[in-house]
Amino acid sequence: MIRLQSYLAGRWQDGAGSGAQLKDPVSGEVLATASGDGLDIAEALAFARDRGGPALRALSFAGRAGLINALAGVLAENRERYNTVALANSGNTAVDAGLDVDGGIGTLKYYASIGRKLGEARLLAEATDDQLTKDEAFRGRHIWTSNRGVAVHINAFNFPSWGLWEKAAVSLLAGVPFLAKPATATSWLAYEMVKDVVAAGVLPEGAMSLLCGGGRDLMDHLKPGDVVAFTGSAETAAQLRSNPNVIAANVRFAVEADSLNLCALGPDAAPDAPEFAAFIKEVSREMTVKAGQKCTAIRRVLVPRSRVDDVVAALKPALAKALMGDPRTEGVRMGPLVSRAQTVAAWAGLEALKAETQVVAGGGNDDGGCFVPATLLLCNDPLAARAVHEIEVFGPVATLMPYDSVEQAVDLAHKGGGSLAASVFSGDAAFLAGFVPAIATSHGRVLVVDSSVAASHSGHGVVMPHCIHGGPGRAGGGEELGGLRGLRFYMQRSAIQGSRSMLDAMTQGAAVVAL
Amino acid sequence: MIRLQSYLAGRWQDGAGSGAQLKDPVSGEVLATASGDGLDIAEALAFARDRGGPALRALSFAGRAGLINALAGVLAENRERYNTVALANSGNTAVDAGLDVDGGIGTLKYYASIGRKLGEARLLAEATDDQLTKDEAFRGRHIWTSNRGVAVHINAFNFPSWGLWEKAAVSLLAGVPFLAKPATATSWLAYEMVKDVVAAGVLPEGAMSLLCGGGRDLMDHLKPGDVVAFTGSAETAAQLRSNPNVIAANVRFAVEADSLNLCALGPDAAPDAPEFAAFIKEVSREMTVKAGQKCTAIRRVLVPRSRVDDVVAALKPALAKALMGDPRTEGVRMGPLVSRAQTVAAWAGLEALKAETQVVAGGGNDDGGCFVPATLLLCNDPLAARAVHEIEVFGPVATLMPYDSVEQAVDLAHKGGGSLAASVFSGDAAFLAGFVPAIATSHGRVLVVDSSVAASHSGHGVVMPHCIHGGPGRAGGGEELGGLRGLRFYMQRSAIQGSRSMLDAMTQGAAVVAL
Repeated sequence: MIRLQSYLAGRWQDGAGSGAQLKDPVSGEVLATASGDGLDIAEALAFARDRGGPALRALSFAGRAGLINALAGVLAENRERYNTVALANSGNTAVDAGLDVDGGIGTLKYYASIGRKLGEARLLAEATDDQLTKDEAFRGRHIWTSNRGVAVHINAFNFPSWGLWEKAAVSLLAGVPFLAKPATATSWLAYEMVKDVVAAGVLPEGAMSLLCGGGRDLMDHLKPGDVVAFTGSAETAAQLRSNPNVIAANVRFAVEADSLNLCALGPDAAPDAPEFAAFIKEVSREMTVKAGQKCTAIRRVLVPRSRVDDVVAALKPALAKALMGDPRTEGVRMGPLVSRAQTVAAWAGLEALKAETQVVAGGGNDDGGCFVPATLLLCNDPLAARAVHEIEVFGPVATLMPYDSVEQAVDLAHKGGGSLAASVFSGDAAFLAGFVPAIATSHGRVLVVDSSVAASHSGHGVVMPHCIHGGPGRAGGGEELGGLRGLRFYMQRSAIQGSRSMLDAMTQGAAVVAL
Repeated sequence: MIRLQSYLAGRWQDGAGSGAQLKDPVSGEVLATASGDGLDIAEALAFARDRGGPALRALSFAGRAGLINALAGVLAENRERYNTVALANSGNTAVDAGLDVDGGIGTLKYYASIGRKLGEARLLAEATDDQLTKDEAFRGRHIWTSNRGVAVHINAFNFPSWGLWEKAAVSLLAGVPFLAKPATATSWLAYEMVKDVVAAGVLPEGAMSLLCGGGRDLMDHLKPGDVVAFTGSAETAAQLRSNPNVIAANVRFAVEADSLNLCALGPDAAPDAPEFAAFIKEVSREMTVKAGQKCTAIRRVLVPRSRVDDVVAALKPALAKALMGDPRTEGVRMGPLVSRAQTVAAWAGLEALKAETQVVAGGGNDDGGCFVPATLLLCNDPLAARAVHEIEVFGPVATLMPYDSVEQAVDLAHKGGGSLAASVFSGDAAFLAGFVPAIATSHGRVLVVDSSVAASHSGHGVVMPHCIHGGPGRAGGGEELGGLRGLRFYMQRSAIQGSRSMLDAMTQGAAVVAL
């Protein structure tokens, strides 16, 4: 059993007391403990601001990209060890661990590559300027500069690697030091990774901090110019966001919360259509990968009412193929939920959904362990139902909802109250041209699969760093990644007004962007 | 004496009780009363969402631009009457009233003109797309769609016209209905204007609502998809932003709060330089226009230590020229503060600043009325001082601060903790190229004045609709206007992923933008 440490103010530190236990969700064995109690958070944040910030801002974007690339290199060397930790502490299958570990490394490499393209610039400028008065030479242009505070990254338990590095990549490229607070239950992986990066000495002092355990007073020490990027439950987000210090200092606060992500089968997709087959494959994959513990996983499945029986008939065998069990066992394709607490919550949510639905596949009862079978529910009157649009079971559970018209499908889509992702399986361009923009307002991302990309698309639940990740309403209203768009959160846009020649002097060497 | 009404749910309504009094700040005469007590806010918001939203979203951007233009036309017809109201209720001089009334009309016309250029599009799309997998045909692109909620606009007392219409213009162009809540003390002007617009019938039902008085429970009725754009004091902003319903529904909330805006004289600007003269003119204008009651007004004035005496010698006579008095009197160039409450607060702030400064012009004592003389303070050790960087006197008061090096000037600039605007008077391109990006992070806008634009620039405190308005930290962290950039707040960005041909189908006719 190991003891996780925190990396704060440039040194490894241990919190007081016995701390929290990190367990193997299959065996229940205690793998590690972590405590952040009594650590000097104010000192850690000041060190990041005063040492990490100036060091990062002194580098060009290409220079920061070099750091990110070196960081990715350190992680890539150790990925086999990380996969072992992910299996033990998160109950991950090899596919699950790959999404998390390789997803993190891949996102770092992507940001290194787009950062290199910004070259030796330290400043970003928008492409166009405007004439502001009758004098043709007096103009306004917009520039972006790096925030001078520290970025606090609060990550969820389901992606201890990807969550850590997708935020770190953007923060570092923007020139902003970060303090990452992983969810304690699965923080072993984050700890191992940060330990390797610190040992390799690839980042300037203060650029990266890690807090394992604790963190209850983190918000109390923030200052104007600091930012918080949060991924996790809506309840925790609301609590942190309400912190009087956060409110008073106008701390920029991005939330990415779990949501009731949608998948829709188009009216055109008959059972023999390639879109139908791609739909079945994606729904079953989304429900079972990481045992459904993805914030982007499909929770609500819209199908034309006439296709319900066909969809049920096809989904049942597809789900049955995802053998559930100990990920160490050959052939197992779906592991346990990450902890008993999560499992208890999942069974409770499933029970609540049963009031409005019938179980058409899976189901069962809590056996005291961490396993929940892949469970498909059917809600025959989804327009009248409420729980199916409000309660998210964070596990391998989805609800089938029939729709009678495209208009009704749009209404059902919005009933989710804002989601991270939707996917639509259809080959009908006219339907898509109406439906997708109509539901986009409630979704941060919409994947459209027709036959031409049925084999090559990136998946409903996979976050590609080129595209923004986040969603409105219950999804939190945040926006992460999206290539250079992600820099926006860590930088300040300013209008500069002046003579054309002075604007040219002030933006000389700036990289031109649209964020 | 008139009774202001509220325009909610498509009809004029009066609140319960005697309500609040609106006064003439010169005479103390009660001009009007207003009460929003007991009005059905939930009904009003639902009416805006259900009637105004669909009607606006059904129009193209050019169609919405047509509405905005018609609205501006109604206001332009009545501007003389509005100026009379502004004089009586706000103590405005003709110049002050013009900034507010004509500023509002001009901003509407500007948004009508840029809206027209978006043409018949109902959808916005970003220019570029990305290849996401090995399949060259599978791509991601970002689109913008209109939020489906209502925008609540909470406006400050100092710009009852401009504040109302600069927010309304952007909201309407984005296709989002709004409910405006003017500050009660000066809401007569907003009431008169909205009354004329309603009577002219130029907007669809539900697109525009007005709440005069009351509003204490406004936040309790918001839903996901609604947004709040707030201008006013940091205290009120913090209170509204902490509302549990706002937090739980992840309501997008923009704050534009008063800040300690900066003006800096460059090291190069000797007393005989045109930049020096332009600097003196701008500081004295900013201090006295609207009696200093502009959220963008100059509060902190940085000058090279060697120039302090020259600056004082030049500023004193410039300030003396701004004759203070009843704006009805010929020759008066500076009116009263808007209310006794504001005047009492201003004298208290001035008193607090005196602990760290000496009075070099103006000063005096509260005589029980609403007049405060233009007052220039000098703080000899601004790096050690605190109050001068934290206390804003919302009146004709500014503090002179000597700096000894450019580095020190940068530090002093950031000590404001985030401001709406800065201006720099210099003809030295090398100095500007370093200084302006270095201070930009703490400022939403930086105006640079060299000799070539000394006569033609738009002014430190004037908000041009082409440029973003807002600032980080204590300025609230919001962003308004900025041409099409302003639409961002009222729209949702979504990544859409799919085959190239389906993306083309879904974005056909979209206007291409960078927000």
